[in-house]
Amino acid sequence: MSTSTLTFFFVIICLSWTKNIAVHSPPNIIIMLMDDMGWGDLGVYGQPSRETPNLDAMAAQGMLLPNFYTANPLCSPSRAALLTGRLPVRNGFFTTNGHAKNAYTPQEIVGGISRDEILLPQMLKKKGYVNKIVGKWHLGHRAQYLPLKNGFDEWFGAPNCHFGPYNNSGRPNIPVYNNSEMVGRYYEEFKIDRKTGESNLTQIYLQEGLDFIVRQTVAQQPFFLYWAADATHAPVYASRRFLGKSQRGRYGDAVMELDYSVGQILSLLRTLGIENSTFVFFTSDNGAALTSGPNESGSNGPFLCGKQTTYEGGMREPAIAWWPGNIAAGTVSFQLGSVMDLYTTSLALAGISPPDDRILDGLDLSAILLNSSQTLKNRPIFYYRGNELMAVRLGQYKAHYWTWTNSWDEFKEGVNFCPGQEVPGVTTHEQKAHTLQPLVFHLGRDPGEKFPISVLTMEYQEVLSRISPIVKEHMKMLVPGVPQLNMCDMAVMNWAPAGCEKLGKCLKAPKSAPWRCEWQH
Amino acid sequence: MSTSTLTFFFVIICLSWTKNIAVHSPPNIIIMLMDDMGWGDLGVYGQPSRETPNLDAMAAQGMLLPNFYTANPLCSPSRAALLTGRLPVRNGFFTTNGHAKNAYTPQEIVGGISRDEILLPQMLKKKGYVNKIVGKWHLGHRAQYLPLKNGFDEWFGAPNCHFGPYNNSGRPNIPVYNNSEMVGRYYEEFKIDRKTGESNLTQIYLQEGLDFIVRQTVAQQPFFLYWAADATHAPVYASRRFLGKSQRGRYGDAVMELDYSVGQILSLLRTLGIENSTFVFFTSDNGAALTSGPNESGSNGPFLCGKQTTYEGGMREPAIAWWPGNIAAGTVSFQLGSVMDLYTTSLALAGISPPDDRILDGLDLSAILLNSSQTLKNRPIFYYRGNELMAVRLGQYKAHYWTWTNSWDEFKEGVNFCPGQEVPGVTTHEQKAHTLQPLVFHLGRDPGEKFPISVLTMEYQEVLSRISPIVKEHMKMLVPGVPQLNMCDMAVMNWAPAGCEKLGKCLKAPKSAPWRCEWQH
Repeated sequence: MSTSTLTFFFVIICLSWTKNIAVHSPPNIIIMLMDDMGWGDLGVYGQPSRETPNLDAMAAQGMLLPNFYTANPLCSPSRAALLTGRLPVRNGFFTTNGHAKNAYTPQEIVGGISRDEILLPQMLKKKGYVNKIVGKWHLGHRAQYLPLKNGFDEWFGAPNCHFGPYNNSGRPNIPVYNNSEMVGRYYEEFKIDRKTGESNLTQIYLQEGLDFIVRQTVAQQPFFLYWAADATHAPVYASRRFLGKSQRGRYGDAVMELDYSVGQILSLLRTLGIENSTFVFFTSDNGAALTSGPNESGSNGPFLCGKQTTYEGGMREPAIAWWPGNIAAGTVSFQLGSVMDLYTTSLALAGISPPDDRILDGLDLSAILLNSSQTLKNRPIFYYRGNELMAVRLGQYKAHYWTWTNSWDEFKEGVNFCPGQEVPGVTTHEQKAHTLQPLVFHLGRDPGEKFPISVLTMEYQEVLSRISPIVKEHMKMLVPGVPQLNMCDMAVMNWAPAGCEKLGKCLKAPKSAPWRCEWQH
Repeated sequence: MSTSTLTFFFVIICLSWTKNIAVHSPPNIIIMLMDDMGWGDLGVYGQPSRETPNLDAMAAQGMLLPNFYTANPLCSPSRAALLTGRLPVRNGFFTTNGHAKNAYTPQEIVGGISRDEILLPQMLKKKGYVNKIVGKWHLGHRAQYLPLKNGFDEWFGAPNCHFGPYNNSGRPNIPVYNNSEMVGRYYEEFKIDRKTGESNLTQIYLQEGLDFIVRQTVAQQPFFLYWAADATHAPVYASRRFLGKSQRGRYGDAVMELDYSVGQILSLLRTLGIENSTFVFFTSDNGAALTSGPNESGSNGPFLCGKQTTYEGGMREPAIAWWPGNIAAGTVSFQLGSVMDLYTTSLALAGISPPDDRILDGLDLSAILLNSSQTLKNRPIFYYRGNELMAVRLGQYKAHYWTWTNSWDEFKEGVNFCPGQEVPGVTTHEQKAHTLQPLVFHLGRDPGEKFPISVLTMEYQEVLSRISPIVKEHMKMLVPGVPQLNMCDMAVMNWAPAGCEKLGKCLKAPKSAPWRCEWQH
């Protein structure tokens, strides 16, 4: 931590005496991105255990968006899409090593975010924003791919998932960075007790976020805080104060701590008097990982399946927009939205023209945020898995062109993306093409995707007559990016991150021996 | 309707001038009981279509009870339990014609609520309450079983479900009563358009409720209004104003109209200045009827299966308590509650001692309502199906002693109580006994009942060691009532209800030929 708690509170006290000294135009932007948190994990979205009084209050003070989507049912591509405003199939966060396979950035991945992409923080710099990412990056861990090479001014967090502990010989533990240098590794300096689930990481991430907000407010500089805590990704963790506090085990404890953190951040904005000049958006990177079992997985509410899939449970996300004085309190917008819209919307709020040399998939939702009765009617949602367009939503209708959960082999070994759920012909264990006759659902009447609309109905024909040309146009215009998630190599793992020498924590990398990564599902 | 709209508004205006003239002690009691509405149908419980701004506001002004249950996954027994404070197996609302079979009161049923039972309105009379039921009765349709013979002073509604239309020869259309005489029949004087779903019934029921509240307030008499609208029971209906207004078809339209009605009732209480002296409770009779298909069935949120079953989707109910100035706003109570508690709690609020000559299953929740941090810790929930105790919940744990959805034969014919859901060994299509080794779930971590706790764990043993003695004690003390739902006879149908002569609507009954009713599931 870069400031002591004492200084921190002193600054808060000073600022609260001089309220509203720091009203910016353009607004500060805070995107809170959760990891594997499901739509159904928030009280306001129906979680029976109701662990989120702060998020529920945030929704009551802002706007709830029940039809908000990620761009991919897996972490890395989803995050790449958020920061580029473009589908993973365009920005390179996909693989061509297999058809419709999910891919991400484990330690052995060679690739990362392409230099050709223009990230949100790079754009925001044009208007003097200071950008910080707190938490999980996941856009490549080799030096050139790290946040400070890609528009962020500050970073506290890790490049990969907090898997482990590893023995540092076959596989190194994941480093935690402070800006451009590592300051330790998970399970070493940054403990996660796999048995009890105890870890202080969320508290550290909270403190890093609060500290940044205070500093930028004092400096009177607009800021972008990308707060990407990962406590709800397995192995799920919480600090001692929250462990055992929820009614649903470790996962609920983690949710309570994240909810507490959100409350602390919003409360600080009010204390600093910058709540009217700070746009805050809360969402998650993909659906709850139902495979993680009852103690470590979240809830996708009434939706089908979870993470890794292109059913609603895999891609519909909790979403709350908050900006007192600008976004009306207690509103609900049924607008179909996407994490990619956060790119475009943030630019619009900052008064920056988006890049005009490329296709952007994100839309500017600012008009909707400022007036909930507005909608962008014909906005489709594309559900991709790797290199394949699996499904499309338009209005209330969703057409599946391909269905797949995972392979029979994997399923028989106990990997189940849809535990307790089985919709014949829909939750298939082979990659089933419906390209000639898509499966169509009405997500209003049937949010659980259980009752395909008969192909013999007028409704089916009418829907397809509207969706088909959109798909055709999309495919025609689609120029896939260079796939970044094809090559793996044990040599590229986090053996010797920058700063390791100072800590005596450099490890010896094996000889380079690249291979084509195998993606199972 | 007994008063014209003009008079009605005149009275409201007069009363609003003399606010608070009518603060009662004991409080008025309003129980709003929905029909087949699911836990997940309310915005506040996560319905993506968010059709319930009034109910969501009611929750924000009152108390939400996410762990509230019905006493049976079917309408008649559930309603009998609510009004008697006793399990159906005690009050006679069950059948012994088959093991663990659900039974209710179709027109051919001979039985009804036993004379030996003491209904809530009968008890409330002791303190001068005037009692009205609006809507569906369902405790027997033969003369001796009707509401005015069982403690109610007024009734506007019908004795049975609004199935039909019938041709009045093989089966009569269901009569609608105003107090002790019929005033018409469904599909005749009281239209329900099966094609469009249009019907004004909810508007009529709303008006009846409002009118009663105004009259009792003017008379300064404490009242009990049992508002039992049935628009969300298939065939689902809504009035023209609401048809097509929701995002999920006819079912959502019906929800919107019911939500509107709840808003009107609460708003009237405030207008009359009696909100602080009127206890209002909103709930439903059983889980959403998932068999009714995507256009006519509701949502059980994250829970397993629906109506007819003893999984959470069949018996966990939406529940909101509202009593400004008495119940703190925006509270959540995790107390395990039951519709049977409405009996006992209402008596407690009215200052009436409950009957002491019988076992009551309802508890007095008034202490919890008035102080949400209180709980009655060791309170079990018993999940019955007909004459069998299928499951028990204690704290966060639920033990299934029997599992069954419906028979293979029925299932193969397309009757599915758990569409899209299948938990091996749990959603069984034979009546499977687990009495020697119950299936145990932790409903906090696993509200969807997907991950049975291994019998080899300490947790399993510990849980059973607490639940088993409770079950044993319950069975020891259980004296089943005389089953009222065993005999059927075409002669007892609603051929010639009281008042039919005046309307020229008497039909000729066939000769009595009783048989033992067959209950399929």
